[in-house]
Amino acid sequence: MSFKASVLTLFPEMFPGPLGISLAGRALEAGRFALEARQIREHGIGTHRMVDDTPAGGGPGMVMRADVMAAAIDAAAPDGDPRPRLLMSPRGRPLSQQMVKGWAEGPGLVIVCGRFEGIDERVIEARGLEEVSVGDFILSGGEIAALALLDAVVRLLPGVMGKAESASEESFENGLLEYPQYTRPQEFEGREIPQVLTSGHHGKVAEWRRAEALRLTRERRPDLLEASEEK
Amino acid sequence: MSFKASVLTLFPEMFPGPLGISLAGRALEAGRFALEARQIREHGIGTHRMVDDTPAGGGPGMVMRADVMAAAIDAAAPDGDPRPRLLMSPRGRPLSQQMVKGWAEGPGLVIVCGRFEGIDERVIEARGLEEVSVGDFILSGGEIAALALLDAVVRLLPGVMGKAESASEESFENGLLEYPQYTRPQEFEGREIPQVLTSGHHGKVAEWRRAEALRLTRERRPDLLEASEEK
Repeated sequence: MSFKASVLTLFPEMFPGPLGISLAGRALEAGRFALEARQIREHGIGTHRMVDDTPAGGGPGMVMRADVMAAAIDAAAPDGDPRPRLLMSPRGRPLSQQMVKGWAEGPGLVIVCGRFEGIDERVIEARGLEEVSVGDFILSGGEIAALALLDAVVRLLPGVMGKAESASEESFENGLLEYPQYTRPQEFEGREIPQVLTSGHHGKVAEWRRAEALRLTRERRPDLLEASEEK
Repeated sequence: MSFKASVLTLFPEMFPGPLGISLAGRALEAGRFALEARQIREHGIGTHRMVDDTPAGGGPGMVMRADVMAAAIDAAAPDGDPRPRLLMSPRGRPLSQQMVKGWAEGPGLVIVCGRFEGIDERVIEARGLEEVSVGDFILSGGEIAALALLDAVVRLLPGVMGKAESASEESFENGLLEYPQYTRPQEFEGREIPQVLTSGHHGKVAEWRRAEALRLTRERRPDLLEASEEK
């Protein structure tokens, strides 16, 4: 056992959820990673275990308290725990396959899931939380974002992917979107598999795929081409 | 009942999953949306209900068959079904809050979840699937991406968010990241709430928040500022 994920949440019953099924589920069962979901409310204030309060300066919604979050983080990751501490947040650094790879080579992750209007800025600073975003859209909380991040990391852990699941990450490894795929039947509703793919000519297949990947990336995500040119 | 989501997947047991809990779970129970997860394998070939085959042109992994996927899509969304048909895919258009809003005003969604190396290109064309990506990272399948997309849409459906959950979407509505939030206690580990927020001066609070949102966006996501300048 090496990789261990600790998720801090108000909804621990969301975990392992989809990570308990299919590829990640088999890896979890085989002990290729460990996952614990920790209830933030256990560190709440008073008999009502209060975790949030109204925003300083006014405005709608509720903000999660710095002292409660700090206690939850300290309990999950005492001093000396080498795992990166993430906060799922739309304000964060956009999650990339490169970040995923780096974490898959590390000891695990501590992931804080926010709810409501966010969490008190002071605990982000005081506990060195790294804000990570899964995209420019708003979720009802960080939990599904944490599930996505962990699914991406877990599939890269040693021994998790077999041959059948391999190689998909090339999509972002070479900075291009993946070329179109085809399989049997040869004809589907009058549409044929492109001839080059059934020619048996490996060089031409590779050339066609590279050209298609470039074409798709240029059409759909010119930003990826610009980003790789800047490197 | 208006919004209906049909998810096509090899793992229907992943649904509703986190969407059955908290905000989305209450909305589901109250009938504010409907969600069905449909097993693609029911449309598989032969006694083994085969859904995939090796990629034309060679390469690792398996590709989901066009005929199987078409049968699954046609069963979920017969001719005349007005719902957009999405395919969760890292090759797709990056999901944005604007897309989420559009779908929340519509009749629902048909969402196809790929696994393996992807699905046969011909069914994407023949059934007009719109490819949508939740980010530049690779998941083990489209299911968690579909959960994220649906969570984002569901919270915008009429009657789903109460006052407590409101307003977070402003983060991307005005093209800026959200300003830092604070709440009680006044002092946390020697860190104070910024004075302006406890001054009671609404104009200055608004000004400070706007400036902080701008600063954070400039530091972390200059691309958002450039995008809004281009409009």
